Amino acid sequence: MQHIEVIKNDGTVEVFDPMKLEKSLRRSGADKQISEEIVDRIQNSLKPHTKTKEIYQNAFQMLREKSHTAAMRYSLKKAIMDLGPTGFPFENLLAALFERQGYKTKVGEIVQGKCAAHEVDVIAWNDTELIMVEAKFHNMLGTKSDLKDALYVKARFDDIRGQEYSFGGKKQTLTEGWLLTNTKFSYTAIEYAQCGGHMRLVGWSYPEKGNLQDMIEGASLHPITCLTTLNRSEEKLLMDKGHILCQAVTEQALINVGIRNKQKVGRILNEVKRLC
Amino acid sequence: MQHIEVIKNDGTVEVFDPMKLEKSLRRSGADKQISEEIVDRIQNSLKPHTKTKEIYQNAFQMLREKSHTAAMRYSLKKAIMDLGPTGFPFENLLAALFERQGYKTKVGEIVQGKCAAHEVDVIAWNDTELIMVEAKFHNMLGTKSDLKDALYVKARFDDIRGQEYSFGGKKQTLTEGWLLTNTKFSYTAIEYAQCGGHMRLVGWSYPEKGNLQDMIEGASLHPITCLTTLNRSEEKLLMDKGHILCQAVTEQALINVGIRNKQKVGRILNEVKRLC
Repeated sequence: MQHIEVIKNDGTVEVFDPMKLEKSLRRSGADKQISEEIVDRIQNSLKPHTKTKEIYQNAFQMLREKSHTAAMRYSLKKAIMDLGPTGFPFENLLAALFERQGYKTKVGEIVQGKCAAHEVDVIAWNDTELIMVEAKFHNMLGTKSDLKDALYVKARFDDIRGQEYSFGGKKQTLTEGWLLTNTKFSYTAIEYAQCGGHMRLVGWSYPEKGNLQDMIEGASLHPITCLTTLNRSEEKLLMDKGHILCQAVTEQALINVGIRNKQKVGRILNEVKRLC
Repeated sequence: MQHIEVIKNDGTVEVFDPMKLEKSLRRSGADKQISEEIVDRIQNSLKPHTKTKEIYQNAFQMLREKSHTAAMRYSLKKAIMDLGPTGFPFENLLAALFERQGYKTKVGEIVQGKCAAHEVDVIAWNDTELIMVEAKFHNMLGTKSDLKDALYVKARFDDIRGQEYSFGGKKQTLTEGWLLTNTKFSYTAIEYAQCGGHMRLVGWSYPEKGNLQDMIEGASLHPITCLTTLNRSEEKLLMDKGHILCQAVTEQALINVGIRNKQKVGRILNEVKRLC
């Protein structure tokens, strides 16, 4: 096989891996035949030092021609970025993911540690667990959560651990502290967290199982930014009203933000029905 | 006494405190009579909601008319900011301060902690102590080092503490970890560091004794940015050659960066002699 070097989002060079692309296409719901066909077409026309971003955009374009629903899933990573520029909709999405798994949640709560008060992005609890999440939202591809992030989050959870909190009326101490990001972690951040213990790192595709993509797909909770029938300002209007999830897009919600054109509403609700 | 509200650098309002201004003037070397005279003049002409920055600038102007040397000392805080925009000259200044106290030093060294490698801004050691310093340089008045800084520095020192290092050929473990800034700390950062232990915070005027201003004045090591006879680009040229300290400004150093005008060199060296 020919080795073609491509350029990753962070500027580093790697050899193009057709398996990785195929896996990513399959994961988005494309069947084996379509995935293989797209990978073949990409590979045959690939020029050295193409950006992986472009490659994936092209593959996405091909997939959209083949399967609209699969394409929407495929663009999930970008849809998460479109929740920005602030991190609030992202935090609300995370809370919804935990709730789907049976946890109760609070967003942006201040908790008193041993030595300082901390604003915790997402708190999730049930009868036996109390999870606190520091969410690092990035709206640029290639931005990583790095060692400095892992260090301050570790110190924060060290200060929180051992204290008793009453969420849902029951006294509990911290079970797990998470640093959760929509992009990648630097290698040093991962190494530090694995060694230092007491902290779970969850990124877009890290760890291999139980990562953010798994959480979203497992729960079938897609953000409204996955919908191709909404434009940027319509998404923004809905998010400002607290509608983060695709499922929350109802006829009433659309009317409330001023989308009243019957045909347009129909197209949007049709896409919601297919995707969510 | 009349209470006049003034606006601090961080935008908050406080009642003007003539004692604070006088203390600051005395500290810069102005004698009691001059200080009182200046404070009286300021107080009699003070309008509500004047910015403290302006008040101090006016006081400085008056002091400059009275005593040139005292004025240079008075402007030390600004001179430290002028070491920017990068933090490197500041780190070199800190190393010189530790060396003046008999320590050996290294700047920007990578040390391996238990779980991660850390770049430490300044390392200072003698036979019995090993001090590591994280330097937070700010070049804007009113910027504070906050809880997040204290958290990541705490985690960094926690990872370093307990490991053995050979500086100067002798095996030592960390004696003290410092977070050292040229501005202020937020209240929560101070509270956290005092409670969590194992970390010393040193800022421009924090703690009351042994702060950065004390360190610089005690060592009589003024940065070249204190000199009023050098312009911004001349300072930059000297700093790029590693000349951070006022004392390092010799005839040869000036010639090396292209300052050859005899009269100008004379004026600069004259100021160096008076201040350094």
